[in-house]
Amino acid sequence: MVGHALVMIRAVLLDLAGVVYDGDTPIPGAVAAIGRLRAEGLPIRFVSNTTRSPHRALVAQLASLGVSVERDELFTPARAAVDWLAREGCVPHLLVHPDLVPEFAGNKVGDRRAVVVGDAAEAFTYAAMNGAFRQLIDGAEFLALALNRTFKDADGGLSLDAGAFVAALEFAAGKQATVLGKPARDFFHAALAGLQCAPGQAVMVGDDAESDVAGAQRAGIGSALLVRTGKYRAGDENRHAPHPSAVVDDLAAAVDWILRKRG
Amino acid sequence: MVGHALVMIRAVLLDLAGVVYDGDTPIPGAVAAIGRLRAEGLPIRFVSNTTRSPHRALVAQLASLGVSVERDELFTPARAAVDWLAREGCVPHLLVHPDLVPEFAGNKVGDRRAVVVGDAAEAFTYAAMNGAFRQLIDGAEFLALALNRTFKDADGGLSLDAGAFVAALEFAAGKQATVLGKPARDFFHAALAGLQCAPGQAVMVGDDAESDVAGAQRAGIGSALLVRTGKYRAGDENRHAPHPSAVVDDLAAAVDWILRKRG
Repeated sequence: MVGHALVMIRAVLLDLAGVVYDGDTPIPGAVAAIGRLRAEGLPIRFVSNTTRSPHRALVAQLASLGVSVERDELFTPARAAVDWLAREGCVPHLLVHPDLVPEFAGNKVGDRRAVVVGDAAEAFTYAAMNGAFRQLIDGAEFLALALNRTFKDADGGLSLDAGAFVAALEFAAGKQATVLGKPARDFFHAALAGLQCAPGQAVMVGDDAESDVAGAQRAGIGSALLVRTGKYRAGDENRHAPHPSAVVDDLAAAVDWILRKRG
Repeated sequence: MVGHALVMIRAVLLDLAGVVYDGDTPIPGAVAAIGRLRAEGLPIRFVSNTTRSPHRALVAQLASLGVSVERDELFTPARAAVDWLAREGCVPHLLVHPDLVPEFAGNKVGDRRAVVVGDAAEAFTYAAMNGAFRQLIDGAEFLALALNRTFKDADGGLSLDAGAFVAALEFAAGKQATVLGKPARDFFHAALAGLQCAPGQAVMVGDDAESDVAGAQRAGIGSALLVRTGKYRAGDENRHAPHPSAVVDDLAAAVDWILRKRG
């Protein structure tokens, strides 16, 4: 597994759920591994597609695990959507988790409407889905915070993530959503802005072979590591192209890989 | 619009919602038009993708409008599913409207499980969708009663039909559903069984340009007429291939077309 060529790695992009923690439990070795990256002086950006929690709740959750994160080190699709709506002058029609609604408090003015779909969980009722659908066929723009198919739920099983409900609305309305979180190229690139790091000099670590790993590589990120924690299931590395740069047991092993590659 | 070539038409397949009635209201001229087909001695089969009502309720609804229908003149996807489950030895995991559940009372034994998705309406909760998803990734078969994107709702607007939720589960589970209602070839053909009528000698009348009209033609049905009632929206005739044999105002005009073609 030891590569012969040293790679210029100037920044590390980390997924959160399934990489750093599962629910409220840190993944063994993850917090220490983040400490090792910090000690090496490698900038970290946390790029999470979790859309059930607002930005400040994710920062608080990391703090409770002993990981101190600056506000601007964490990138979420909701933040990207808030920027998009302001830039385009759109008022959102939200189909998101109730906890995420306050993030959009500033987006109240605009000439147009945009349906915004996140992982609404129990708020994915028929009435809410139909309300979003009617906005779409009435001409509203269509933003997806994420396209993830599944996430690892509190009971350890896989559960439906936002992507399924985005697919439902795309099918019925005959309209494709603009994706704001991973695997959108702009999302990965925005996370690297201000870091003096070209996309090819960054490495992404995630448990989602599609959004995190194949997505990062399609966005030009230099390397992408798939961890065998979180939602990972045997064979995931062969289900989506491009394949991972490497498959490793967990974040601790990913950091070993990164530091070895830097030489 | 008068065709020069006479066509051998030996049976008529009629959609129900949007063609014969809208909700509880018959579409003007529809009941009399059915009477004209009967008077001509043309066999009719009703082929409905409506999956919110059981078979007997549809027969009762037609009776209340003055259309007498024998049990075996009405074909529904639920009936096709009941047959499929018995033939394959599968126990259903139902994601259907509560009113449809009793139709499956006989399918209680079998070695395998099959997720069955119909238009569950308000029963499309997140928990129910997730329950079906988990069955699918655990190896269950996957049956869709229909793939319709929309239906004309009681308030006159378009609402989400079963197809959207089937698409959601297909996306998340990475598995394609077997469709039992229109536009499945077998469904159209089963409706013609026992009629001494080859598919090419039948005509289909519907308001859904995709499931009814393009679907029938792909199944080898000789002609397919799109009516401008029900869920029809201007331009629907150009949205799906093959295009309709003709676009007509309503069922009365469709029957004019059919009787003219027979000469």
